[in-house]
Amino acid sequence: MRVVAALGGNALLKRGEPLSAANQLANVRRAAAALAPLAAAGHQLVVTHGNGPQVGLLALQSAAGPAEGAQPLDVLDAESEGMIGYLIERELGNALGPGAQVATLLTQVRVDPADPAFAKPTKPIGPVYTEAAARALGLPVAADGKGWRRVVASPKPVEIVEAAVIARLVDAGITVVCTGGGGIPVARGADGRLDGIEAVVDKDLASALLARSLKADALLMLTDVAAVSLDWGTPRAREIARAHPDALAGLGFAAGSMGPKVEAAIGFARASGGRAAIGRLEDAAGLLDGSAGTTIDATAPGLLMRPAAGQS
Amino acid sequence: MRVVAALGGNALLKRGEPLSAANQLANVRRAAAALAPLAAAGHQLVVTHGNGPQVGLLALQSAAGPAEGAQPLDVLDAESEGMIGYLIERELGNALGPGAQVATLLTQVRVDPADPAFAKPTKPIGPVYTEAAARALGLPVAADGKGWRRVVASPKPVEIVEAAVIARLVDAGITVVCTGGGGIPVARGADGRLDGIEAVVDKDLASALLARSLKADALLMLTDVAAVSLDWGTPRAREIARAHPDALAGLGFAAGSMGPKVEAAIGFARASGGRAAIGRLEDAAGLLDGSAGTTIDATAPGLLMRPAAGQS
Repeated sequence: MRVVAALGGNALLKRGEPLSAANQLANVRRAAAALAPLAAAGHQLVVTHGNGPQVGLLALQSAAGPAEGAQPLDVLDAESEGMIGYLIERELGNALGPGAQVATLLTQVRVDPADPAFAKPTKPIGPVYTEAAARALGLPVAADGKGWRRVVASPKPVEIVEAAVIARLVDAGITVVCTGGGGIPVARGADGRLDGIEAVVDKDLASALLARSLKADALLMLTDVAAVSLDWGTPRAREIARAHPDALAGLGFAAGSMGPKVEAAIGFARASGGRAAIGRLEDAAGLLDGSAGTTIDATAPGLLMRPAAGQS
Repeated sequence: MRVVAALGGNALLKRGEPLSAANQLANVRRAAAALAPLAAAGHQLVVTHGNGPQVGLLALQSAAGPAEGAQPLDVLDAESEGMIGYLIERELGNALGPGAQVATLLTQVRVDPADPAFAKPTKPIGPVYTEAAARALGLPVAADGKGWRRVVASPKPVEIVEAAVIARLVDAGITVVCTGGGGIPVARGADGRLDGIEAVVDKDLASALLARSLKADALLMLTDVAAVSLDWGTPRAREIARAHPDALAGLGFAAGSMGPKVEAAIGFARASGGRAAIGRLEDAAGLLDGSAGTTIDATAPGLLMRPAAGQS
């Protein structure tokens, strides 16, 4: 099978953990150990990843360094693709062993400059602050979980610029790391040229677009939550084992966490006929065969539930 | 022809110019305008680039940001491949126009952990300081031109890890940006795993190794100097138009600037039978047909000179 596996922010950095080089490497190694068996089993594996904490850190570093050296957000997105992509490629290669071919492709994602998202920044990046410290940044900020974070515009992805090159590498049996951080946002001007855009594209929506572009059989969205649940966090919580996209649409999930994953899963299942799955990084193989997490596909009879085994 | 074009630090940032986002973009556009005609003429073009000023800036930014977020030099090298590679890919695509396929591949370069370079850091990175300010950094520093700079170890490149993937893309007619900053230094441990190494590999030597790995016909080393010259900077200066590698070896060139280019050119010409050329970015087409710069190839009769037209 051709599989796009999207590593969520919480799969690459545990909740509350500071983004140090050592933490990042430990989490990348954990992710590589969970994903390598898919490639070793003969699946065509494409790995994407988030960059929220990383691009936030790079933005802080960029602002703290020499004044003339500060970089716009598209360049910081590109830096984060280099940083994270390198570590995933190296550690996937280490996990797969000699002879494995892994490659990381920088990926631009085209957005619409008229996207309404530019008028209303919603995507949290970087560290968690107190409300007072966040407001003191002088940048758009918003509440996120227990704290406050900087927020930037998150326009919809329209085209994966390098999709044909990625497909060529996948066809050749190469495990590809790409579309990091939702891709580097670019937009086409009236003169036809691509220019950089200061935004962060949602990596689940970009991964779903990539999966459609590659005609993938499955899109796995990997996080630290076992499945999509109803009444999550209450004693009545039940996991959704399998869902028809129409049955899932309109149930309503948190904008900052499960919402984009569910939206991306519905979009992929409807447009492609393939299967989307949402669940834990460690359950990647179970997500692919339907034995773990939540599977969303257009042949499901409706909503099939299972009792929540454990909530995190 | 299959051509590897290496953009030197002075081709991507004019001497003395601060590394701002605007300066970087202007220089990348200038480089793209100079290189696009090679691809448009039907040559298989592979673009590599330096990262001295950029990785130095990223190191300053990384140290100035939150303490726990500081990153090792291999990760900063990877960030610089993302930053510069993205801009070169985007602007080469813009210069080539619709339908052109350009891709940027993160590149690891394997080095020998026993390389003597680790005992003696020589590679300058980052901004130019006064001697006092440089010594105050508390890191290895050395005189470089008119000022002082931080220096890091620069081990010899042994293997371009992604060479087979790069060759596959080139074979498919895709213009490839890779081996940025000399590649991300990695070394194989006793357990066979690759680990990151805190170093900066010389981009001319890495580009020459890449050119040999790809069986390239030509290696162009692009800088802001018209050619390799004898008695450079004196009234007796003469440009070398063409040289046999044996005639060039042992003449002695500055370690920080022309030395690595000449060493890389000699190595490529001897090992491959192809042509290496050194000269101005703007003369890229002339370097390829031998009408500009210095060509080094094993069929040259010795040293052929021409009067220096203008020195910079």
